[in-house]
Amino acid sequence: MAGEVQELLNAVKDGTLSVEDAEKAIAGKMRMEPFVDLGFAKVDLHRKLRQGAAEVIYGAGKHPRQIVHIAKTLREHGQNTILITRISEEAAELIQKELGDPFFYNPSAKLCVLGDFPEPDGAGTIVVATGGTSDIPVAEEAAVTAEALGNKVTRLYDVGVAGLHRTLAHLEELQSARVIVAVAGMEGALASVIGGLVDCPVIAVPTSVGYGASFGGVAALLSMLNSCASGVSVVNIDNGFGAGFLASRINHI
Amino acid sequence: MAGEVQELLNAVKDGTLSVEDAEKAIAGKMRMEPFVDLGFAKVDLHRKLRQGAAEVIYGAGKHPRQIVHIAKTLREHGQNTILITRISEEAAELIQKELGDPFFYNPSAKLCVLGDFPEPDGAGTIVVATGGTSDIPVAEEAAVTAEALGNKVTRLYDVGVAGLHRTLAHLEELQSARVIVAVAGMEGALASVIGGLVDCPVIAVPTSVGYGASFGGVAALLSMLNSCASGVSVVNIDNGFGAGFLASRINHI
Amino acid sequence: MAGEVQELLNAVKDGTLSVEDAEKAIAGKMRMEPFVDLGFAKVDLHRKLRQGAAEVIYGAGKHPRQIVHIAKTLREHGQNTILITRISEEAAELIQKELGDPFFYNPSAKLCVLGDFPEPDGAGTIVVATGGTSDIPVAEEAAVTAEALGNKVTRLYDVGVAGLHRTLAHLEELQSARVIVAVAGMEGALASVIGGLVDCPVIAVPTSVGYGASFGGVAALLSMLNSCASGVSVVNIDNGFGAGFLASRINHI
Amino acid sequence: MAGEVQELLNAVKDGTLSVEDAEKAIAGKMRMEPFVDLGFAKVDLHRKLRQGAAEVIYGAGKHPRQIVHIAKTLREHGQNTILITRISEEAAELIQKELGDPFFYNPSAKLCVLGDFPEPDGAGTIVVATGGTSDIPVAEEAAVTAEALGNKVTRLYDVGVAGLHRTLAHLEELQSARVIVAVAGMEGALASVIGGLVDCPVIAVPTSVGYGASFGGVAALLSMLNSCASGVSVVNIDNGFGAGFLASRINHI
Amino acid sequence: MAGEVQELLNAVKDGTLSVEDAEKAIAGKMRMEPFVDLGFAKVDLHRKLRQGAAEVIYGAGKHPRQIVHIAKTLREHGQNTILITRISEEAAELIQKELGDPFFYNPSAKLCVLGDFPEPDGAGTIVVATGGTSDIPVAEEAAVTAEALGNKVTRLYDVGVAGLHRTLAHLEELQSARVIVAVAGMEGALASVIGGLVDCPVIAVPTSVGYGASFGGVAALLSMLNSCASGVSVVNIDNGFGAGFLASRINHI
Amino acid sequence: MAGEVQELLNAVKDGTLSVEDAEKAIAGKMRMEPFVDLGFAKVDLHRKLRQGAAEVIYGAGKHPRQIVHIAKTLREHGQNTILITRISEEAAELIQKELGDPFFYNPSAKLCVLGDFPEPDGAGTIVVATGGTSDIPVAEEAAVTAEALGNKVTRLYDVGVAGLHRTLAHLEELQSARVIVAVAGMEGALASVIGGLVDCPVIAVPTSVGYGASFGGVAALLSMLNSCASGVSVVNIDNGFGAGFLASRINHI
Amino acid sequence: MAGEVQELLNAVKDGTLSVEDAEKAIAGKMRMEPFVDLGFAKVDLHRKLRQGAAEVIYGAGKHPRQIVHIAKTLREHGQNTILITRISEEAAELIQKELGDPFFYNPSAKLCVLGDFPEPDGAGTIVVATGGTSDIPVAEEAAVTAEALGNKVTRLYDVGVAGLHRTLAHLEELQSARVIVAVAGMEGALASVIGGLVDCPVIAVPTSVGYGASFGGVAALLSMLNSCASGVSVVNIDNGFGAGFLASRINHI
Amino acid sequence: MAGEVQELLNAVKDGTLSVEDAEKAIAGKMRMEPFVDLGFAKVDLHRKLRQGAAEVIYGAGKHPRQIVHIAKTLREHGQNTILITRISEEAAELIQKELGDPFFYNPSAKLCVLGDFPEPDGAGTIVVATGGTSDIPVAEEAAVTAEALGNKVTRLYDVGVAGLHRTLAHLEELQSARVIVAVAGMEGALASVIGGLVDCPVIAVPTSVGYGASFGGVAALLSMLNSCASGVSVVNIDNGFGAGFLASRINHI
Repeated sequence: MAGEVQELLNAVKDGTLSVEDAEKAIAGKMRMEPFVDLGFAKVDLHRKLRQGAAEVIYGAGKHPRQIVHIAKTLREHGQNTILITRISEEAAELIQKELGDPFFYNPSAKLCVLGDFPEPDGAGTIVVATGGTSDIPVAEEAAVTAEALGNKVTRLYDVGVAGLHRTLAHLEELQSARVIVAVAGMEGALASVIGGLVDCPVIAVPTSVGYGASFGGVAALLSMLNSCASGVSVVNIDNGFGAGFLASRINHI
Repeated sequence: MAGEVQELLNAVKDGTLSVEDAEKAIAGKMRMEPFVDLGFAKVDLHRKLRQGAAEVIYGAGKHPRQIVHIAKTLREHGQNTILITRISEEAAELIQKELGDPFFYNPSAKLCVLGDFPEPDGAGTIVVATGGTSDIPVAEEAAVTAEALGNKVTRLYDVGVAGLHRTLAHLEELQSARVIVAVAGMEGALASVIGGLVDCPVIAVPTSVGYGASFGGVAALLSMLNSCASGVSVVNIDNGFGAGFLASRINHI
Repeated sequence: MAGEVQELLNAVKDGTLSVEDAEKAIAGKMRMEPFVDLGFAKVDLHRKLRQGAAEVIYGAGKHPRQIVHIAKTLREHGQNTILITRISEEAAELIQKELGDPFFYNPSAKLCVLGDFPEPDGAGTIVVATGGTSDIPVAEEAAVTAEALGNKVTRLYDVGVAGLHRTLAHLEELQSARVIVAVAGMEGALASVIGGLVDCPVIAVPTSVGYGASFGGVAALLSMLNSCASGVSVVNIDNGFGAGFLASRINHI
Repeated sequence: MAGEVQELLNAVKDGTLSVEDAEKAIAGKMRMEPFVDLGFAKVDLHRKLRQGAAEVIYGAGKHPRQIVHIAKTLREHGQNTILITRISEEAAELIQKELGDPFFYNPSAKLCVLGDFPEPDGAGTIVVATGGTSDIPVAEEAAVTAEALGNKVTRLYDVGVAGLHRTLAHLEELQSARVIVAVAGMEGALASVIGGLVDCPVIAVPTSVGYGASFGGVAALLSMLNSCASGVSVVNIDNGFGAGFLASRINHI
Repeated sequence: MAGEVQELLNAVKDGTLSVEDAEKAIAGKMRMEPFVDLGFAKVDLHRKLRQGAAEVIYGAGKHPRQIVHIAKTLREHGQNTILITRISEEAAELIQKELGDPFFYNPSAKLCVLGDFPEPDGAGTIVVATGGTSDIPVAEEAAVTAEALGNKVTRLYDVGVAGLHRTLAHLEELQSARVIVAVAGMEGALASVIGGLVDCPVIAVPTSVGYGASFGGVAALLSMLNSCASGVSVVNIDNGFGAGFLASRINHI
Repeated sequence: MAGEVQELLNAVKDGTLSVEDAEKAIAGKMRMEPFVDLGFAKVDLHRKLRQGAAEVIYGAGKHPRQIVHIAKTLREHGQNTILITRISEEAAELIQKELGDPFFYNPSAKLCVLGDFPEPDGAGTIVVATGGTSDIPVAEEAAVTAEALGNKVTRLYDVGVAGLHRTLAHLEELQSARVIVAVAGMEGALASVIGGLVDCPVIAVPTSVGYGASFGGVAALLSMLNSCASGVSVVNIDNGFGAGFLASRINHI
Repeated sequence: MAGEVQELLNAVKDGTLSVEDAEKAIAGKMRMEPFVDLGFAKVDLHRKLRQGAAEVIYGAGKHPRQIVHIAKTLREHGQNTILITRISEEAAELIQKELGDPFFYNPSAKLCVLGDFPEPDGAGTIVVATGGTSDIPVAEEAAVTAEALGNKVTRLYDVGVAGLHRTLAHLEELQSARVIVAVAGMEGALASVIGGLVDCPVIAVPTSVGYGASFGGVAALLSMLNSCASGVSVVNIDNGFGAGFLASRINHI
Repeated sequence: MAGEVQELLNAVKDGTLSVEDAEKAIAGKMRMEPFVDLGFAKVDLHRKLRQGAAEVIYGAGKHPRQIVHIAKTLREHGQNTILITRISEEAAELIQKELGDPFFYNPSAKLCVLGDFPEPDGAGTIVVATGGTSDIPVAEEAAVTAEALGNKVTRLYDVGVAGLHRTLAHLEELQSARVIVAVAGMEGALASVIGGLVDCPVIAVPTSVGYGASFGGVAALLSMLNSCASGVSVVNIDNGFGAGFLASRINHI
């Protein structure tokens, strides 16, 4: 950054740049990154992580029209692939109507992708595993996020450790992954057991699936935080997006 | 207060006031403040904080007809501006029908103002900032409350610190405020960061926005209580009204 | 019980039993079981579960002299083996001095056995397994309790599932057990994984071992309660005694 | 297991088994147990506990069509009795339509049994007791589970200890049981009192019945975990199935 | 009780009572109290506290038809006044249809009284006070319960301590009560302040009214438990019935 | 109170009382009660509940010298019996040295009584019962408090319901009490069972005795709050004093 | 800030400032504020709030030598008054030895002031009130902080609302304050009651004083957050410093 | 793995391997990994992650002699660098005495390294940042762990966001890191703010530093889990080791 300020100053000194323009440029830098202010939201334009990857809108708590407005703004600024999480079916329909194809929507994961999925350009494969069938929506949020960000994803669903042979049957897929996302609500043990079997980073996602003393995912969260297996870290309950995003980041190092 | 009792006693001594009237007056003072008893509610008439400011009805848990009854009682006692919080759309409609214009209703904040907004007479500007888009309803409760109590309000929405440049872009507005209300559900950090940037009081409002381990606002509440920035205090989760009221009180010192 | 009352009544009818004695006997039955009242404690004399098994004193919160008093009372009523849990080294020494050999004390488990251990008379073997080394004191409370109640016990320590091969190396011992006690603080997963590998009852004991979000055993407790493996039940945190006692009860069916 | 590997190796040595087939067989053993992979679920085929007993599908979080698919797969592999827990009325109807009679459905327990109930072959009687009337759905989940797994069950409902005579009136049934399942939401005390009256294992099931400081079953759960009566263990809140399954396991030892 | 057994024994001895009848009578006493077993519920017939007072049915979790069944059984056994708590409007209608007048129903308190209210025969007056308007349903549960059990009740609603003059205006009513029930959700302080002003027992009832960090009544519950005022005890959140019942018991000493 | 003000006013009118004195007297009444301000503490002089009863000092968090200062102040104002709770042995010794005999100190309950115990003048007997031996210190706080306030107390210790015959053996003492204080840490069930056996008020005191999931008394607290037995109310964990005080209040109605 | 950058740019344009110096100056502004990096700590030099006021060091978790190092650095940069919170007696002694007089230390509040207290220059008086005697250390942290920052402070200790007359006796002091700090552990009600009596801002400080269900200050914290009185905000448990600092900030508006 | 079994089988077929040896080899594989059983601990020998990196012993809950025993076993199996976490000073001394130099011990982090630190062979730099001075021990656990596993580490301590300029002053170091470990107890916001400034993975470590409503690290944990910045994941409270280990794993991809 320092280099750019030096350039500006030299230009001022040389008289090729007015004080006003230089001041504006420097002020911009002090704020660091450009964004568009829509009043109810500031749309980041700087997060374009790499060629072809998706920009993300967090849909929860936003009115369908607000989402459309943000998505259009991103499109206008050249964003091809746009990922929208936690978006209702109603809002998804409005978006498809207004922004057209290509369009992807997964109703159980409440996840929408506008534009084409990019070609995978991550270094390896991301495995997304679940303890049970009911964890699949959160797992899909992670998997589709990773795919929209340019990763190859292998899904291993219902491999909970209470039936250990189901987990071990996939030992080779687990051991050849570059990152693993372990998604579980009633079997927090899944992250622990997988973490002990592999030597790549494991991102654990507790889900709010379960009943009674699962306390909306708290039991799984605590179980995962206390995992004795090294190399395991945890994201928020049901945060499939966060896990998929982080997995992609690690896979693109 | 003592002076007034002395006056009464002198009047009794002088014979210009009967014992009965004096007794009644003193008993009244011992209870301190007048109110009207509607059976289901005691309507305070003493809270008129200053010329032109609003009286407040907490609408939650009250039947629409009860709210109308209280509002009418306040009107009859000369209250021009009446603020009603946590009031359903149905109740708001009934009130407009029964008490007429001028009438203001914000459906997402569930906030209603009867009568004219007063001219701002607070000493400075109150800034109301939010971490995200979904925090806006609580922020509006704070902002409109402050306006109804006679304050100038600047709204800075979606300036969460996870995109720090969005916060810093408003540094000047923040640093010239007299009081700041920082509203956030997923970014409890907002209060901490703002608190470190300004030297006016910061009132933090955790919101119940979020999912998973946000626990209905508890994560933001704890984050705000543990803020290392001095000058920050906290009100109840989603208590936009309380923050707006306190901000107004400080702004009117 | 009904039969005994009938006998008493017949004896009254026949005149072979006085009304007073019958009344006393019936009153006794209504209270059901004999005990000795020491003032500060009521010593049960009816719990002698079977020939040779141990009677139990819960030592926590009792003064060493109180424990000695209770132990002597049990001895006087013919109890050979007496198990004392949660007893300090100081109290254990006093007991050995006062009640003599044979005497056994495990300082980490804070467990004392007075008198001879009985010959194992349970139907099978009880396996006591731990996730880590720090769980051993609780595991010993379970194991010694089971031994004092007449059971053969196999100890499998440090077989946590984060190193799954350590667990699987003992598959045959686990699968040939009649009851398994799974003790773990940081690896609540242990109960889940073992529960899925065997078809005997598994009693899970969370321990207060761990740090941070283990919350004194709560993480392990919740993990165990949410186990997807069938056949698993849970006792209180650190309740090695309860697990050993229940395991013995099942092993003696 | 070792014996079987030896046999395979000898067959390879003798030339009666090809390397390929031996490799496949050994690999299978290393995964331990057969299952059918339906994509969204791995169906265990190895849990057939004994002749005539039921296989179990956990219905929560599964689509009705997924349940039908799993049930059909189990049928095709020779499973006569299939127990489906936490299944909606809608899903139950679909199953009856697709898989026909004999069919049993308990709408309050949300429990479905496909095929005939087996003849009881457990060693004794399982008593299922509840503290109140509202605990009955969870108790029925336990009772029907036990019946589907081949047990004789006695139901003692509304025997809460706040009216102790109601509990004591069933002393004989309690004392002659082989295992007791104690189900209670507001009277966690039930497990404690019953545990002190009998010498068989007591499986305590907290229910989410109650209000206020019952916290969805947490009060009962803690009360049961802290029970001073020996021989009591606990399963998850509302986990009638787990209790019935474990009771059956103990009753079949 | 002992006297009655003696009588029975003497009758046996005299031959005026058969062994069989005596045995049955004694067995009955050992169970202590009569009840009617309806299968899903054991209806107590022994709780008739005094001439004219109400019997109670806890309606939550019971089917309307079950409630009708229990109520009819109580009627048949001579119970004139029957109090039914936590009963839906639908169930209340069915009851009125089946059991007829006199009939009382309070829909916000979900409380039903069958038969005539008894004449007050308690020694003094019970005051039921609330902090706010939204606490009234719980307060009514307490007040009507007390009335149905034969007490004179004074209602002081919306006297929360945040407007202290509203509380102090009723000082005389508070100080002349024999028992006070203090009901509050957001103003747990109410019990503390009242407790310091009077010298009769104060029964505090936290309500689940409130939002944010009120946590469904937990804040009020803790505030009340920590009250520095002596003479205050607490019942479960929203347990108006329990408070009214206990107040009546104290008022009838 | 109104009458007294009237008298004062008449005296002013008659000239027999100066305005100044009247003003002072009325101001005093408006503050309601006399106290002595020691700077660090305001000593109430108005709580003398009845002839001979004890005044109370809460010792926790006070320096021994502060306690002596308060006690002396009370003595000087004519208080004969002074109860000091939560007082260390060191402070108790200092008090005995400074204020002399008669002096009573219970080191496990950390309770001190200065002066003579009054003659019992309550209407009936207060029973103080405990679930176990370790609950005795809290029970003694309740029992001695009640005795210092002029009540006859019966102690029933170690009558926990896990050995129900120990509870039932004292049925007559329980049923003839006027108030019962039920103290328990691991057997919250005690209050429930006793509450169902008697028809007098039961004050439940959870204790912090226990381990694991007892959570410092929370398990017992919740169990007691959820008691299905009517007539039970609860005080703070370990609050023996509060229970004894309230029991005395009820016993003196 | 913009103006300063413009000046720099003009100087560059005029040739009176080199590009290097301008770049350095601008970079400095982008980092905003000067501090001294001691390796283990960054010492802020920009917080000098106003002439004569104190700088603050948070002593907890810092080695005595580290504190001395920071204090010396501040001294060297011209800071006269230095406030050190949460500092052990040992560290305080070391500081006095190394940095000399004037020196103030309050051992119960663990608070140290180096240098002279400034003359009060705040607009009004800050009242610091406590519910009980044990809350005084936290109150002193607030009071001395406010004094060190240039405020006049009135202390009202032991004015808990369970003895309401003690609170009301100070009504005039409360009503003439500009800000009130209400400190309480067992009487969270204090903030509520005071908040309803005054019209200045009230800063509530929960303390960890109490036992049982006070949960280390959580009960008071929740009670304060739920206060119905407007104008009340809350800081962290035991955070006397934060309250005193904020009170000073409001008093200096 | 399959390939190796095939080889073994071919050798058996060829007669170059006996059935016994083959069986043993296959059984070994089925258990997957070698370890040494010390009775109280199973020492993994398979975790040697790469040439030169450290093996790890978790010291908490292990007797000093047990640690020595494990360390010696590792040495004997050729492990050069051994990292021991959570080890007391006493145990560290014993180890130095028994296993000699090179020896490193950090007493505040309770971390010991036996043998030489390896040359850094990770791809980039790991930044370890803390919010305050008191977070340094946990940060050192992370930093030294990473160094012992072959990484270059940059320490940025006391850069909490309440003084944002301290954070921003290190923007370049943060933005050039390959992985960042953000350690904070009172400033959970740190992870959020850093996460928004960089595009590498951020591992957040909550610490138990703080007071009041920090609840031993829970406030920071929740704040970090709810971080809106993408790319952030969390490990257990105070788990510096886990963060350092995971950072190393990512840095060695």
